[in-house]
Amino acid sequence: MTHPANGLDDVVHQRVRLGILTIAHEARRVEFGFLRASLDLTAGNLSQHLTVLEKAGLVEIEKGYEGKRGRTWIHLTADGKKALYDEISQLKRLIRQVEQTTAEPRPPESAPHPG
Amino acid sequence: MTHPANGLDDVVHQRVRLGILTIAHEARRVEFGFLRASLDLTAGNLSQHLTVLEKAGLVEIEKGYEGKRGRTWIHLTADGKKALYDEISQLKRLIRQVEQTTAEPRPPESAPHPG
Repeated sequence: MTHPANGLDDVVHQRVRLGILTIAHEARRVEFGFLRASLDLTAGNLSQHLTVLEKAGLVEIEKGYEGKRGRTWIHLTADGKKALYDEISQLKRLIRQVEQTTAEPRPPESAPHPG
Repeated sequence: MTHPANGLDDVVHQRVRLGILTIAHEARRVEFGFLRASLDLTAGNLSQHLTVLEKAGLVEIEKGYEGKRGRTWIHLTADGKKALYDEISQLKRLIRQVEQTTAEPRPPESAPHPG
């Protein structure tokens, strides 16, 4: 079986984009400013990552108003939800692989010197 | 509490590097060609990622011979092991977050059309 790292998709796995998808998964839609604050990003950086996700069909971006204030809303598509679940499933395989190794008796960090 | 995506370190989280650290964790040391085949990489690409990990102090790279053939061996440092475990622990938080949301009753994928 292929190594779980080969089953990860860079579009989804990249740290910030994985964060966006995770947060977008929690609600029907999330507001741009909320994402930005949650992930501690600049507006420019968040926009770039959203563009990658939108081009891949994983999120939809909707501009609108809340009172007089312009708002941008992001929501996960069905493909985005599937991509997130695929990522999670590969990550679980990878974690199992690390934890199985950890469970074996570990050699001492440094071998004792004789004498 | 900060979002788990903010606790991920790009040096470790990047797909190929996470693969390298995971495989290096499985043995005392791994050979360059084995890593390359396992992760389906070009030598140049693998070298670049190894340089990033070596500069961060997460792996050590050792050149030697096996018979007449030059070999490059990679092994995880104590810092590398710690960094991998930190990554796994943040990933588990992130997975829990996704799965807690998934466990809630889901709306149907598409609302049935009346009539």
